Formats: sequence, C-alpha cells, structure tokens
Amino acid sequence: MTDTNQLFSRAAARMAESAIRKMGAVLASGRDVISFAPGYPAPETFPWEEFSEIAAELLASRDGGVLQYGPTRGYKPLLEAVTGIMRARGIAVAMDQLLITTGSQQGLDLVARVFIDPGDVILVELPTYVGAISAFRNVQASMVGVPQEADGIDLEALDETCERLRREGRRVKFLYVVPNFQNPTGLLIGLDKRRRLLEWAERRDVLIVEDDPYRELYFEDAASEADVRPIKADDASGRVVYLSSFSKTLAPGFRVAWIAAALEIAAKLEMAKQAEDLLTGSLDQRMIYEACRRGILERQLPILRRHYAHKRDVMQAALQRELRDATWPKPKGGFFLWVTLPEAIDAGAMIYRAIEHGVIYVSGDAFYVNGEGQNMLRLSFSAPSPERIEAGVARLAATLRAETAGRATAAAAGGPAAS
Amino acid sequence: MTDTNQLFSRAAARMAESAIRKMGAVLASGRDVISFAPGYPAPETFPWEEFSEIAAELLASRDGGVLQYGPTRGYKPLLEAVTGIMRARGIAVAMDQLLITTGSQQGLDLVARVFIDPGDVILVELPTYVGAISAFRNVQASMVGVPQEADGIDLEALDETCERLRREGRRVKFLYVVPNFQNPTGLLIGLDKRRRLLEWAERRDVLIVEDDPYRELYFEDAASEADVRPIKADDASGRVVYLSSFSKTLAPGFRVAWIAAALEIAAKLEMAKQAEDLLTGSLDQRMIYEACRRGILERQLPILRRHYAHKRDVMQAALQRELRDATWPKPKGGFFLWVTLPEAIDAGAMIYRAIEHGVIYVSGDAFYVNGEGQNMLRLSFSAPSPERIEAGVARLAATLRAETAGRATAAAAGGPAAS
Repeated sequence: MTDTNQLFSRAAARMAESAIRKMGAVLASGRDVISFAPGYPAPETFPWEEFSEIAAELLASRDGGVLQYGPTRGYKPLLEAVTGIMRARGIAVAMDQLLITTGSQQGLDLVARVFIDPGDVILVELPTYVGAISAFRNVQASMVGVPQEADGIDLEALDETCERLRREGRRVKFLYVVPNFQNPTGLLIGLDKRRRLLEWAERRDVLIVEDDPYRELYFEDAASEADVRPIKADDASGRVVYLSSFSKTLAPGFRVAWIAAALEIAAKLEMAKQAEDLLTGSLDQRMIYEACRRGILERQLPILRRHYAHKRDVMQAALQRELRDATWPKPKGGFFLWVTLPEAIDAGAMIYRAIEHGVIYVSGDAFYVNGEGQNMLRLSFSAPSPERIEAGVARLAATLRAETAGRATAAAAGGPAAS
Repeated sequence: MTDTNQLFSRAAARMAESAIRKMGAVLASGRDVISFAPGYPAPETFPWEEFSEIAAELLASRDGGVLQYGPTRGYKPLLEAVTGIMRARGIAVAMDQLLITTGSQQGLDLVARVFIDPGDVILVELPTYVGAISAFRNVQASMVGVPQEADGIDLEALDETCERLRREGRRVKFLYVVPNFQNPTGLLIGLDKRRRLLEWAERRDVLIVEDDPYRELYFEDAASEADVRPIKADDASGRVVYLSSFSKTLAPGFRVAWIAAALEIAAKLEMAKQAEDLLTGSLDQRMIYEACRRGILERQLPILRRHYAHKRDVMQAALQRELRDATWPKPKGGFFLWVTLPEAIDAGAMIYRAIEHGVIYVSGDAFYVNGEGQNMLRLSFSAPSPERIEAGVARLAATLRAETAGRATAAAAGGPAAS
C-alpha cells in the first residue's frame, strides 16, 4: 500500500503525543513508579457509596433515557443544575448559553474548531495547560505566549504582544487563561487584575476563553471563595467563553463538563459537538446530576479542600527538606506544584533517570509554546498518598543528585552530560 | 461587542444543525408525536437487570480506575475483548491497531481530522449517513457522491468519478461506505461486490472507511452471518479503516465504539483523540466490557434480530396497506426503511404538515451530498412499539393525503403549494 504519511492531513502531520499521556504509558507498564505526572484526583475521595446508590436507582427505573441517545446540548435537568452552580459563582446564564461537553478537553477542542482557521493567533499564558496546547495545535492555531507575574498574566506584555501581532496583520482570535490555580503553575490571577483583563479585552476587542476546573479547590489557609471570582462574572457583553468541569470535584471517569458562552457562540459549539460525538454519555450525565441534586457535590467540596491542602503541605515540606536548590510559588489551591530547578538541569532529559529512580513528573517545556521551561517541572500532589508523596520526593532528590553528579563527571571529562 | 460572526472559523461558518437532531428537538417539545426520525434502539431490549448488577459490582469494588482518567486508547480488557469480536467477524487485528472512541461519531470525526485538508475529496454513497456528512463537512471536505444499485455502490460510476476527479487534480482521500444495512437505505453490499470494491481500492490506491454499526442486526429470513462479512476481513494491505459500535447492540448512552486501522493510522487517531476528549468514559467502558465478558452481548443478538425483524414486518405491512404510492427496498437488517414517494412530493417541506399530524421522519435530502432525495424519506422502525408503528404510518398516510390535496388545490388556484 501507498505511504500513508502522504495521506495525512496537515493537522495530523503536526500532531504529537501528549507528554502527560506518555507518562501514563510508563505507569501502565507496571513498574513501581511514584507518579507526580498526570493531574489525577484522589480516588479515595470519590463518593463511591453514593454513586452506587445512584446507579442502582437509575438502572432500576428502566427509564429509557438513562441508556439512550439524548440531546447534544445535554440532559436538561443537569443543564438546569449547572445554571445554579454558575449563579453561585456570580455568573447569570440561561440554559441556551450552556452545553455539556465530554470533559473540558472537548470544550477546548470545540472552541478551537469554532474560532480558529490555520494561522489564527491564540494568546496563551507562559506556561499554560498542555491539553489546551494540543487542542489548539490540532486546528493549526498559532499560539503566542505572554509571561506571568506572581498575580498572573503580565498585562503590559499582553497588550504589547497583541498590538504587535495586529500590526503584523495577524488575526488574534482569543486569549486563553486559567485564572484559578493554573495548570501548571498553581498561580491565581489577582482580583484587580481580572477586572483589568476584562477591560483590556473590551478595549482591544479580543475574546477571553476562561478555563476554570480547579476553582472549588481553594485551600482555606491561603484563599477563599472571594479570590476565585470568575472573569465571566463581570462579563456584560458576552466576551468570555467559560469552561468548567465535574472531573476534579466528583470524578473524571464520567467525562462530564460544561461550557458557557454567548447565544450565537453556544449554538455553533453545539453544532460542532453534534458532528464530533453527538452527545455526552447519558448515564454519566444522570449520575452527575443526581450527585448535584442530592447535595453530594456540596458535601464533597470542603472534604476535597482539606484533602488536597494537606497533600500540598506534605509535598512542600518534603521538597524543602530534600530539594534545597528548588523553588516554587506556594499553591493556594488546585493540584500542582511548579518547580524551578537550577538552570543547568534539563528536566526533559532527566526524565529517564527519574524513571530509573522510580518517580515521574512532567517536564516544564511541555507547557511552554516558546521552547522555555527546560529546567522546570510540574509535580501533581493530588493522587498519591502522603507517604508516597514523601517517598517520591526522596526519589526525585536522588534523581537530581545523580543527574548533578553525572553532569559534573561529564564536564570534568570534557564530554557532554550523560542522560 | 463585536459581531461574533466575523470571528468564526470557516468550518464554523459552514456548520449546520443536523436534520435528525432538529427532529429530536420536536420530540423534546412534549407533543404526542410518533417518531420515525432518529435511529434509536428500542430501550425495552436493553439488558437493564444485568447492567444494574454490573454497575453495583464495579462501584462496590472501589477500584479507582472505574471512575478515574485512563489511557486514550481505551480500557485494556475491553480492547482485548474487541480483538475477539473482530476475530469472529473474520478480521485479525492487534491491540495497537485499535482505539476505543466516544461513539462511532467520534470515529468518523477522527478519521476526517487525520486525513482531510480543506478541499480534499471524500467519495460517499448516494445517499449516505447524515452524521458522516456532518463530520466530513466540519473539516471542509469536498464530498462527491456515487449512486447505489440494489447490491450497493455502483462500481463503474465509482471508478469514473474517481478518475475524473484525479484528472481534475483533486486529492481523493478515501471512500466512505456502510456495507451492512446502510443508513439510510438499508441496502447490503453484495459479497462479490465487496471483493471487487477492495480490488478497485487497491488498483486506484484509495483508502476505504468502512462503517459497520448494524452488521449484527441481520434478519434471519433474508440474510445471514455470511452476508455481512466486512470488507476489512479481506484487507491484506491495511487499506481499510473499520468502525463499529456497541450502541446498537448494547446501548448508545454509554458512547462506546471502536475503530481499527493500520498501525501508523491508529497512532494518529489516538493523538487526535487525546486532544479531542482525552479518553472515553471509564465506567462506560467497564460496563460494556463486563457485558461482553459475561456473555450478555452474545445473548442479546438473536433477541435483537427477532425484535427488529418483527418491527420491520409491521412497518412494511402498514406501508403496503396505507401508502400505496410509496416504494422501498425491503431491509434485510438494521433500523431503516427508505421510502420513495411520488416525484411531486417534497418531503422536506412536508415535515411541518407531518408534525401537525403527529408523526416525524427525516427527509431524504439530508442524506444526499448533491441535493437529491427531495421525494424520499427515512423511516426508523427500531424504537417505536408495533402499535405506534401502525399508528404512525396511518398518520403519515394522512399527512400525504393532505399534502396531495393541498398541492392539487394550490395547482387549481394557480398558486404555489401550501406548506
């Protein structure tokens, strides 16, 4: 048969395997590896018993809809429940501005398909969520990065970048931001900056895509409900497309998330989803709806905040003890710790040594659209137990010592560093 | 805010709401409407009790994987089970040639994304599955139709079309076919024609995308296992991409389907899926796997064949009684009856009158990429009860009488037909 490579689309030719998913394959290989790589929620926090009861009742009902095709927009009672969740976040949306998606990953993909022609610009944070990078790459977007400060994206740099691109005749379609406990940095955009960001978007006529999966997971020693107010809450003109999910608060295996947007945008997103997967799982949507209706979601949130705050504490203490050369911004919520190592370290090359030592992470460069991040790594503290976190950080420290020693030996021998 | 229309991508500008999904909205409006529109399986055939038991056991296990993220390729035991199902269909595939998809709709979308650049040609049957048309339109494919004969696609017309397009310098990427009980016509490609189709594809170096959701639902009075042998079964060179699904045999609400392709194609499909929705639902995949492992799928098949054959009989008898002007090829399997009405009838315009009479269908033009099919309609006999099928056909006959009378009156008055 003919060489299939010449048959692939331009988008397919550029597709690459996700760094995180690659690490998943290492895990699946069955070695004793402590994983700080994928941002998995802790399965011991899942409300197993409640889900059992809900599934039993749903399937005993023999209500055809539980296992049947359903509307692309989503299961109506769930859409109603989501309008309530949005209201509690300060966002007033009607049901026809909402769409249930097959995970937030699908939401990102749909936004990309609806707005981007090859070469159109998406402005992103430096660093940014690797799954968004994949979705945007697959529609052949041109991603341009903007640095972050301690309180989030650098507004001056943002404006300069946008204006420069426009002077060059580029079409800047939207800015993608994760304002709450950003993946990967854990940073929180300050409230004042959120307001100014929205003003900027109005002034420059740019859409904002606000991705908000972690907002419920603020750590009460450092942040509160007031700090995670969505940008969308102050969006009077329909300029913000807002995504959120039940994956981090109930369970990701259900693949239930949502997207809220101005009417005409929501209508296009629905058409894109129709052709992409028809609908999100019917049983899954009903399971999630029942977990909302029965107050299980509400009950989970304080439990999760304490659970993940404790794991962050354990990881920070271990890092302080074991990795004296490392620095990181202290996460006020979410799943991630973003570590900067000494400049000489190449975290991407070091991953093989880390696997030998029985620990994995995601190297920083996966999150940068401009090739930076070489000496950085993302550590997820969400899934492993406190004991495994401590053991994993010790393994990471051993990895780093071996890497440094290897580099010193190689330097002394005048050759390149062993990897 | 700026006019969002100018922000949409070229693909989004061309997106249209699916005709079938539009009919779904009519149904959701709560009127007493008998639906022959969407191809829904009959919920009374779902193995409710068995699914209940499976869900209870899975959730009682507290095995994190049941509700956690998982590999993009799919749940390994399910992939293994699918290799067994494929073997029983005469297709030898290794696990790394397989990918679990979020319904076959996602499979079609992934194939389109991986192969198609705007303007590339996909050859399709006239008529063809409307969901495939949507997926292919969303990547801006140029779809070119080939007529069908009683035993499926017209091979001479196919070859002429392909050669003409190539002479015009067009890139013909693949042929999309539904060989078994095609949606919408119910036609079966003859065995000899399948062989010649594959030879043609080899000779002309074209890929075949074989979509096979209905093959298990052959009606024993008219067809057998031997008649539904996949084209892929004789594919020695990896030229055929094969899609199938559990939606029609277990339940569609789980959104579990699969795609089989040559290694390097499967790898690209996986990367495309990573960025599109990360993975197919974890609980859903395990539910389906258990239904395979416990022999529930096997037990269902003869039940389903009898169930749908009976409904086809009921619908055919009712049509023969009530719609004397209509013709259709007798379906030997599947969910659909493809009806040709007198030439003067515009089935698309008639739908509003049909809704008034309390019945819906999908008008034929939705399945044609060349504007034909105006006087045709697709009737699904799969979901309604035999009584509802009879009542619905009576309503359809009343609709047609009213339409014919309306046209006659309008013609006599010299004006356009009322709609």
